[in-house]
Amino acid sequence: MLPLYHFILFLSVLQCSSGLFPTPSAQVTFGRRTPRLFGREATAATSPDVTETIRRESIEQYEEILADGAFSNMRKNGTMIFLEDLEKTSDYIHDNFDAILFDCDGVLYRGADPIPDASASLKALIRKGKNILFVTNNAGASRMQLRDKLANILDCEDLTEKQMVSSGYSAAKYLERALEDRGVPMDRANVHVIGSAGLCDELRSFRCRVTGGPSRDGPPPSMSREELADYSFAEEERRGKVDAVVVGLDTAFDYRKLCVAVVLLQRHPGCLLVATNEDAYDLVGSDARHLPGNGALVRAIEHASQRDAINVGKPSRILAELLSDRYGLDPSRTLFVGDRLDTDIKFGKDGGMKSALVLTGCTTVEKLIEVGMGTEEEPLPHIILPHMGLMGK
Amino acid sequence: MLPLYHFILFLSVLQCSSGLFPTPSAQVTFGRRTPRLFGREATAATSPDVTETIRRESIEQYEEILADGAFSNMRKNGTMIFLEDLEKTSDYIHDNFDAILFDCDGVLYRGADPIPDASASLKALIRKGKNILFVTNNAGASRMQLRDKLANILDCEDLTEKQMVSSGYSAAKYLERALEDRGVPMDRANVHVIGSAGLCDELRSFRCRVTGGPSRDGPPPSMSREELADYSFAEEERRGKVDAVVVGLDTAFDYRKLCVAVVLLQRHPGCLLVATNEDAYDLVGSDARHLPGNGALVRAIEHASQRDAINVGKPSRILAELLSDRYGLDPSRTLFVGDRLDTDIKFGKDGGMKSALVLTGCTTVEKLIEVGMGTEEEPLPHIILPHMGLMGK
Repeated sequence: MLPLYHFILFLSVLQCSSGLFPTPSAQVTFGRRTPRLFGREATAATSPDVTETIRRESIEQYEEILADGAFSNMRKNGTMIFLEDLEKTSDYIHDNFDAILFDCDGVLYRGADPIPDASASLKALIRKGKNILFVTNNAGASRMQLRDKLANILDCEDLTEKQMVSSGYSAAKYLERALEDRGVPMDRANVHVIGSAGLCDELRSFRCRVTGGPSRDGPPPSMSREELADYSFAEEERRGKVDAVVVGLDTAFDYRKLCVAVVLLQRHPGCLLVATNEDAYDLVGSDARHLPGNGALVRAIEHASQRDAINVGKPSRILAELLSDRYGLDPSRTLFVGDRLDTDIKFGKDGGMKSALVLTGCTTVEKLIEVGMGTEEEPLPHIILPHMGLMGK
Repeated sequence: MLPLYHFILFLSVLQCSSGLFPTPSAQVTFGRRTPRLFGREATAATSPDVTETIRRESIEQYEEILADGAFSNMRKNGTMIFLEDLEKTSDYIHDNFDAILFDCDGVLYRGADPIPDASASLKALIRKGKNILFVTNNAGASRMQLRDKLANILDCEDLTEKQMVSSGYSAAKYLERALEDRGVPMDRANVHVIGSAGLCDELRSFRCRVTGGPSRDGPPPSMSREELADYSFAEEERRGKVDAVVVGLDTAFDYRKLCVAVVLLQRHPGCLLVATNEDAYDLVGSDARHLPGNGALVRAIEHASQRDAINVGKPSRILAELLSDRYGLDPSRTLFVGDRLDTDIKFGKDGGMKSALVLTGCTTVEKLIEVGMGTEEEPLPHIILPHMGLMGK
């Protein structure tokens, strides 16, 4: 078993330059270098084993950062690295932030398994009166479904629908505003969806008419290219126009759905093309395999339609503006907590917030070493934590 | 009915600047501006109606070019525009070219309908001893299947398999060379295919082992995300490694196939990713709808795997080198005949050949007007013909 660090390191540029903290790389055992079990889909309910595995792995990731010199890169960048000290970490969070925004998968849970102490930490932050929001690129669930899922996994009934900010909700809010500007109120809008029932429900809650999704509307489940060349689009165009095509991750995505979306975009030149996110992949399974994310579907539609989609998920400004308009956050007192550099951390930084990376999700040590001082697309976070269970006590 | 022009216009820069030829735009009636019936899938066997429709439409396209000023753009570019004079056009082709390379769909036929006089024209070129090749981005058929299809549609039994250069063949030839360089002879190579049975057959004719395609190998036809997180890849990895993923248009493409390709690319970092082409869409159906091309599938795989595919179809240099190595063409005496600016015409120009655009396929008058003097990605052709039926007599 590898040692735990029971102290907190403040490694901002000033503090590091003071020379108070020795580089701890010599103290640690070098761990495994292969990608790990992050984002795994759980097949059973939470167990102590899973919790212990998550905790051990996040600590091992730390060991590797420290041993590999990535640590000194981050230090130069001003990134603070918090280790396993609940009291100091939670005090720092409490003192510096009024609002804390959480990404969900890989931060609060993995599959159906909560992150160690996530529930206790969250309840402590609520108790302290922090403004807590959940900001996810997953458009698969409506806000109410997401609330119920979080309440269940985190054993926390205090959560409200208003705290849920999914990219499906962002898509609906964006359409409401953009179509209004074109003189189309939502209750007269016609929206075609590639995505889940939850995304359709979210859009329908804004009173627009929805075709596509997993519903019985639209074309039959299997069509040849010849049938697609003749398909009438009567259902999709029942109101005479299609105002938007919205794309969320759809595991039933196929060539037929691609065709329908592309031909609708061709036939309705004013039609908006909205991506709930452009994520390339998720790490799932015990071998951290890359299962394609919504971005892959979006790229297919963009290429065939020769259009650029409007991204309303992280790291887009559209979502940042929605948060700022609706929740009145002070970015300088807001912390965005996530597990991906290219969506969560970029989103936090672009929005003028502080950002915290947890090591229980997509970002591996290899990735941190690879990005070095960070890039425009993959910036380094302000803070790194092994897991969110340290944030509140 | 619109008039036919029974003369030939040589509109090279020199000839035009001599002022010998009056601009004929005043002579023509302005036709329809909406996209037309190009690339339509035929539902019945060839009929005089279809032939007449194709002829009329290609002439109407001419009228519009001339009327719209696109004509003068092309003239400035040195493009020659041939009208409805069989004798002069075929003499020009005969005198200037030893090898003539044809794209297939939209040039020789549309769906199952041959282009007017394509058969007679082709037979005349063969009779004159021209080196004729058929170069298609369609990887759906093996070379033998393509030969049989062309022989049947064009009523020309003289065609040989060697004259067929499909992008599936190009993929196989590319893999043979690239894998040999890595010490993997084709008879020990393991290739995973997204694409048709014809593409699989073409690859198997090079003796490699093929998984995927429409075969019974690989995963069951429908899998949930959870099943995809656990899928073993035992069939794909039976030999312990996967050397290449080859992507051809697959109308049974779905999220499951996307996942399998992406995870194989992740698990086999040395695995090549090969695109038979990157075409965005084809125009099909009576409303010239955009049905997505193979490029859409390629973009999805590229984004999810964070890799760039190697394109072996038009307009790639890999295909140009294959033609040059295998057929010993003299580019200055070679004409590439096609219906797309971004694949056929670009390919011809990049390969140092002369290029001819026919107006029986994808390229509409609107497109020609839009590109103006042409771009790097969509260059203007050296020659424009209403249809290939004028090329040989």
